[in-house]
Amino acid sequence: MGRTRDNAVAQTEPVLLSKTELRQRLQQVGEAMYHHQHPFHIRMHAGQLTRGQMQAWVLNRFYYQSRIPIKDAIILSKSEDVAFRRAWRKRIVDHDGDHDGDGAGGIEKWLQLAEAAGLDRDYVISTQAILPGVRYAVDAYIDLVTHNTLLEAVSSSLTELFAGQLIALRMDALAKHYPWLQNGLAYFQGRLTQAPEDAAFAFDYAAEHAVTPQLQSLVIHSLERKCALLWAQLDALHYCYVEPGSLPPQPNIFRPESS
Amino acid sequence: MGRTRDNAVAQTEPVLLSKTELRQRLQQVGEAMYHHQHPFHIRMHAGQLTRGQMQAWVLNRFYYQSRIPIKDAIILSKSEDVAFRRAWRKRIVDHDGDHDGDGAGGIEKWLQLAEAAGLDRDYVISTQAILPGVRYAVDAYIDLVTHNTLLEAVSSSLTELFAGQLIALRMDALAKHYPWLQNGLAYFQGRLTQAPEDAAFAFDYAAEHAVTPQLQSLVIHSLERKCALLWAQLDALHYCYVEPGSLPPQPNIFRPESS
Repeated sequence: MGRTRDNAVAQTEPVLLSKTELRQRLQQVGEAMYHHQHPFHIRMHAGQLTRGQMQAWVLNRFYYQSRIPIKDAIILSKSEDVAFRRAWRKRIVDHDGDHDGDGAGGIEKWLQLAEAAGLDRDYVISTQAILPGVRYAVDAYIDLVTHNTLLEAVSSSLTELFAGQLIALRMDALAKHYPWLQNGLAYFQGRLTQAPEDAAFAFDYAAEHAVTPQLQSLVIHSLERKCALLWAQLDALHYCYVEPGSLPPQPNIFRPESS
Repeated sequence: MGRTRDNAVAQTEPVLLSKTELRQRLQQVGEAMYHHQHPFHIRMHAGQLTRGQMQAWVLNRFYYQSRIPIKDAIILSKSEDVAFRRAWRKRIVDHDGDHDGDGAGGIEKWLQLAEAAGLDRDYVISTQAILPGVRYAVDAYIDLVTHNTLLEAVSSSLTELFAGQLIALRMDALAKHYPWLQNGLAYFQGRLTQAPEDAAFAFDYAAEHAVTPQLQSLVIHSLERKCALLWAQLDALHYCYVEPGSLPPQPNIFRPESS
């Protein structure tokens, strides 16, 4: 059981849902809470963000990307099942890669996006300029998978059910509105196939292991929590860089050259 | 820093050791504390253990084997360095493998050893028959890597510096004295090359990152702690199955058919 029920939304389902019903229930959560509807993303996809705002997004989102293999290694370490660990290992390989060349992982590809956006690679890697609000939300993800059950940790990855559609939309929008990013889109290309594969595995695991209404509620709530921590990252970005555009006083925070 | 300094032996080194001196210091720890000198191993290699005692060893040691990828995933999750994580990932692959056939990992190979020893595979996997003393020692290893720094966690793997020599000796002894195990020795064959590779990486990491006498002392003490938890597993086995041969009262504990 989780330690905290932050912003609890999921109630215990009154009866055990079928696998199809559980999938529908998760879909409802995604439609209501996934960050595809966040004002920052809506502006991004409408071509309304400045270069500086896009840089702020790429830079801050790197912190999330950099924590994904750490998060996945924690999940891997929570399983006593060799077959599960083998399957989950794929995610670590996807993001860390095998080397920086042809076998580049998601983190390296995100750095290529950052460079295409005109950011210095080492500056991004240092994470010194990340907004505190973004950092807290990402660290909450590590906290979620560390301190909750394997089922909840796996379920928190179910936002991947909705990622494919958002990424397809994003690739079109970035190519159209921000052509100066065109050399940095390999990350999204990779995720187009990885995210649906990962989502299918995680959903099958959750559906198989959530054998009571209580456990199904934990699955649903873990997805809600994950949606909240993705959304909160964009809130911080939007507040600081778009509207009202009020930067925190820390000296290292990213300041666009002109926006 | 570690939470506990259990059975502290390492004192803070008075001056910073060179890499060669650090290697020598670790070698001294191994010669004094590594489990190659444990009475149980000495009897094993002299051909003095019964089939039942060998079964007890294979069965109980499985618990240790089964925790290795979990331990390594925890270590991986403690690093923010992609290159380190890529390198450490090899250990998880070595033990979990890719599948049960040609790509069998160390855990599967240990199960083959168990089957060669006449044990039921599912009985071994269940870990129901493990001695409490063995379980506590192995769980202490997970605790060590969870609650200490990355440097200490990595250093706890430095027993691999001594594993190659012990395994070579063991393969000869097992083939000579326990020929009924001959179809189960693939695990040791694999470790003959894996252990020295892993040890070299871990030692280089420790030597590079232990940049003060205090940190070098933590490296040395982590190796001592690891030696202690390997030794304690054999103490439990020896006490219960060899001399005096007093089994704990738990009903599920492994009882050799004849010994």
